[in-house]
Amino acid sequence: MNEAALTLEGWYALHDFRSMDWNAWKRADDEERAGALEELHTFLQEWGSVEEEHKGSSAVYSIIGQKADFVFMHLRESLEEINKVETEFNKTTFAGYTHKAYSYVSVVELSNYLASGNGNDEDPMQNPHVKARLFPILPQSKHICFYPMNKKRDLNDNWYMLSMEERRDMMRSHGMIGRSYAGKVKQIITGSVGFDDWEWGVTLFSDDALQFKKLVYEMRFDEVSARYGEFGSFFVGNLLHEQGFEDMLKL
Amino acid sequence: MNEAALTLEGWYALHDFRSMDWNAWKRADDEERAGALEELHTFLQEWGSVEEEHKGSSAVYSIIGQKADFVFMHLRESLEEINKVETEFNKTTFAGYTHKAYSYVSVVELSNYLASGNGNDEDPMQNPHVKARLFPILPQSKHICFYPMNKKRDLNDNWYMLSMEERRDMMRSHGMIGRSYAGKVKQIITGSVGFDDWEWGVTLFSDDALQFKKLVYEMRFDEVSARYGEFGSFFVGNLLHEQGFEDMLKL
Amino acid sequence: MNEAALTLEGWYALHDFRSMDWNAWKRADDEERAGALEELHTFLQEWGSVEEEHKGSSAVYSIIGQKADFVFMHLRESLEEINKVETEFNKTTFAGYTHKAYSYVSVVELSNYLASGNGNDEDPMQNPHVKARLFPILPQSKHICFYPMNKKRDLNDNWYMLSMEERRDMMRSHGMIGRSYAGKVKQIITGSVGFDDWEWGVTLFSDDALQFKKLVYEMRFDEVSARYGEFGSFFVGNLLHEQGFEDMLKL
Amino acid sequence: MNEAALTLEGWYALHDFRSMDWNAWKRADDEERAGALEELHTFLQEWGSVEEEHKGSSAVYSIIGQKADFVFMHLRESLEEINKVETEFNKTTFAGYTHKAYSYVSVVELSNYLASGNGNDEDPMQNPHVKARLFPILPQSKHICFYPMNKKRDLNDNWYMLSMEERRDMMRSHGMIGRSYAGKVKQIITGSVGFDDWEWGVTLFSDDALQFKKLVYEMRFDEVSARYGEFGSFFVGNLLHEQGFEDMLKL
Amino acid sequence: MNEAALTLEGWYALHDFRSMDWNAWKRADDEERAGALEELHTFLQEWGSVEEEHKGSSAVYSIIGQKADFVFMHLRESLEEINKVETEFNKTTFAGYTHKAYSYVSVVELSNYLASGNGNDEDPMQNPHVKARLFPILPQSKHICFYPMNKKRDLNDNWYMLSMEERRDMMRSHGMIGRSYAGKVKQIITGSVGFDDWEWGVTLFSDDALQFKKLVYEMRFDEVSARYGEFGSFFVGNLLHEQGFEDMLKL
Repeated sequence: MNEAALTLEGWYALHDFRSMDWNAWKRADDEERAGALEELHTFLQEWGSVEEEHKGSSAVYSIIGQKADFVFMHLRESLEEINKVETEFNKTTFAGYTHKAYSYVSVVELSNYLASGNGNDEDPMQNPHVKARLFPILPQSKHICFYPMNKKRDLNDNWYMLSMEERRDMMRSHGMIGRSYAGKVKQIITGSVGFDDWEWGVTLFSDDALQFKKLVYEMRFDEVSARYGEFGSFFVGNLLHEQGFEDMLKL
Repeated sequence: MNEAALTLEGWYALHDFRSMDWNAWKRADDEERAGALEELHTFLQEWGSVEEEHKGSSAVYSIIGQKADFVFMHLRESLEEINKVETEFNKTTFAGYTHKAYSYVSVVELSNYLASGNGNDEDPMQNPHVKARLFPILPQSKHICFYPMNKKRDLNDNWYMLSMEERRDMMRSHGMIGRSYAGKVKQIITGSVGFDDWEWGVTLFSDDALQFKKLVYEMRFDEVSARYGEFGSFFVGNLLHEQGFEDMLKL
Repeated sequence: MNEAALTLEGWYALHDFRSMDWNAWKRADDEERAGALEELHTFLQEWGSVEEEHKGSSAVYSIIGQKADFVFMHLRESLEEINKVETEFNKTTFAGYTHKAYSYVSVVELSNYLASGNGNDEDPMQNPHVKARLFPILPQSKHICFYPMNKKRDLNDNWYMLSMEERRDMMRSHGMIGRSYAGKVKQIITGSVGFDDWEWGVTLFSDDALQFKKLVYEMRFDEVSARYGEFGSFFVGNLLHEQGFEDMLKL
Repeated sequence: MNEAALTLEGWYALHDFRSMDWNAWKRADDEERAGALEELHTFLQEWGSVEEEHKGSSAVYSIIGQKADFVFMHLRESLEEINKVETEFNKTTFAGYTHKAYSYVSVVELSNYLASGNGNDEDPMQNPHVKARLFPILPQSKHICFYPMNKKRDLNDNWYMLSMEERRDMMRSHGMIGRSYAGKVKQIITGSVGFDDWEWGVTLFSDDALQFKKLVYEMRFDEVSARYGEFGSFFVGNLLHEQGFEDMLKL
Repeated sequence: MNEAALTLEGWYALHDFRSMDWNAWKRADDEERAGALEELHTFLQEWGSVEEEHKGSSAVYSIIGQKADFVFMHLRESLEEINKVETEFNKTTFAGYTHKAYSYVSVVELSNYLASGNGNDEDPMQNPHVKARLFPILPQSKHICFYPMNKKRDLNDNWYMLSMEERRDMMRSHGMIGRSYAGKVKQIITGSVGFDDWEWGVTLFSDDALQFKKLVYEMRFDEVSARYGEFGSFFVGNLLHEQGFEDMLKL
């Protein structure tokens, strides 16, 4: 049974982390800033329309610390749509007051470890629960947490040399931890093999940022993470409703 | 017993390392510099008020060497407050004369290894000693030392594959070293799993900078650090009272 | 039997990843932009002529995310020709609106593992099938995926300490996976030992970007990749026909 | 017996590597350059006075290659003094024509492996030989070599898990190599645990740069370095007497 | 027998990789560009004179890809001469149109593994063959390849823990591969222990760039490289005669 065939993919994803060029923003005059904000407003509206038509979803969060000032997370139907939203933003006046900070390209996925073994042969893409997870509306939680990760391939700690059974058993126990945070943390897994420098992106949403710490820390003792997890940078931030975004930018 | 549940968390923390743009600072005229310093002064005052209301604490230290010129260490009640203090600083004129150097996002924590095993079931958050450690007023010691760290997960040296007992025993002996520096070095541990790129931040305060070297060096021979410690960049600096800050900036 | 002698090499390759300097592009006036696009148009035409004369091939794809905005992939007969196309582009007005993002220098190759063992002694360079693979016209698929890679030399996981037979057997099973994607993904392997920082570059073309993910993920469980593969950054993008390129640049 | 207690510390050290901003230096007019050089001259004089009063020592060397153009090595009595010399330089006009390249913060130290086992209990700080090594006047040799280093903690090659006896024996044989270069290479070891990103800085001085290569290469076969040494960047340069510095800067 | 004593050293070497600042070069007017080229011409002439007096040798090659646009490779009698040629170039108008890309500081060396065991005690520095290799005139081949390298010290794969005999046997078989490329590839080994971040620099010259790939690839299966070789960035380029350099720069 082919590993890749067992994974289900949904919308493509772009995490677009940006830093403000505060000096340029301050040097601009009121009119320039108002124009830039107006353009930004139009964009946020357009992204809302895409979501209403259920052709994707976008979310805007501030990022704490110097790594970035905010992130746009976009889900779209194709890499062409992802590229379009990114390029159109780059052309705005507002984008000219920002610097690139980090980005991540991936696709929403449901892991084979969950999909397999259900013993029936219905088309999972017809399953409303599955569809809701592959084409999700991004939650408007108070906080976001994002990090990319790999499964290790280091001498005796090589995930990809394990049998499917070993991996499935470990993933199951891993999933149990995740489920114990149900209602507190919502998690979207995106796959990036072939798309970006890590194998997966993990995006967590919660109204209580401490739950990110508790969840990730608890999982770290689980063999899947303890022996096989390899983690990139962690980004944490706060929801930016349009008003919040404007407040952040108001001088 | 859940690992995460045993950790107690207090105030959120931001270490905000900055470098002066000395060329821009010199190019500014006296009036511009005076205005920038006035704004900075207002900020330092505001941070003092937060501390008086016991809604957080802030400290300002110079940093030795080229990594940064100074650090703001902020403790606040929420990520929203942390984000606010950071964004408001970015909007100041003075910030326009600085560059981002490094930052660290975390939350003050008391480790489960200390919390557990006390055999009674009082709510630790009611314990004044515990509260004082989770919501600390930052000391005004002559020197600061900051570094982020991980516990290793490298083949046979994998902290997260050890049993709780093994970890507790090692942490206890580790804590003994720390306690032998009581009165000489004050230490604040902040957890950053899910918040930043390392698992913990360690901030040390002392009136004698040599004690940082002695403490960290002695601990390095302890099995917890020797086999399981992984360290990021080290930053060391001197206390900047407001007058000291102005002296540093006076041309 | 000499390892190097069994590899066949064709055209030299340059992957030239570029980011737009959007701010400079916006600051330019319409006339400047029109001039720059006209020059770019001339270049794309010239590259087309090289392809018609079968002296090389060039392809242009957008890149998703912040790593780059687009990539020029050039195949040419010599390093002198590669250097020429690169330098001539650098001299254009349009290049002045771009930043360097990443590049890769290599040469199209057919591996000894395929070439050897065919038991006859015809000159492979006279074989039209071999020639077509060494001097390929780059496909105009909807998507591109590029990543550089090494074979590991890490203690017990050392590809270069294996016998030729062990390597050949593993590469054969590896090739089977590749062949199962025939018709869905076209793959061009370029060797870069002595030319760039990794040992090989892999360029994939497909009309369905998900096939990149499935192919690379499936291969990762194969021992060649699982134990011996070491991967650099992954870049993914969309075909840019000349009109598409102009649309991307239109403000 | 406490490891840290056996180490003796002397003056604090800052290695301040700088690159010239040659374009800015050329753009300046003769008067500006003369003013900057005059200020630099004053600084070099002041540093000389500190040395005469035996409150520290400073040396100036050019650096070969692109890593930096020159290095200031400062020894001072406290981190406050180190910070002061660094900040005062940053405020000079001349500093405005330079870029930061690299820096290192440490403190002169004598290792416990040498200090221990002398069997008597005199206060080593009263020993003139010890004092001369902890508070050294920097030599005016023709060449300098600087590199930071760690002792490894990598699975079976873990310096910090060895017994004091094992470490002492290895350090003794290591010291023998160093002593065989007596008269040819002068070596100053500075400790940076808790102060900078590596555990030690090694600064070598010699009138024959080849001796750096011979010494470091010979030591590399010694078990202390071979199994346990981990090295950062190496910097090599030539003595800059004040006249030499001016010649380097004369256009 | 001392390891370091068995190595013979000749001229010091600087590899100075530069990128053009194409935007600044285009902004300059014809007169400024002509002046810059005139100055560059004078430099190339001076370097030629040094070579005629046999006080060193210099070569100029373009570099393919974005890592650099060209490299100056200088051999000189002392670090003072190396520093002088570098600083004088930095002061030229032409240098102001370039950016630093990478540099490497080393010294031509003949390895002890070749030098030892010849069983007689003549002074090798009197041997004309040895002298020609230590003080070489750089070839004007069509192509150059440069890369820095280390011998590994990684747990069981630790070159520096092997006996002299083991190392000598492996180096001999390694040398055989090199010799099989005689007439096709000329190789200059420079040692950089104590001078730069890697232990050796390898510079290859050939009229057929494919020979770099074949040589380095074939060697990679040799135990010396397979188990013990650690490689930095690879740079490849084309000879730049003075006319070629001017063509490269002509807009």
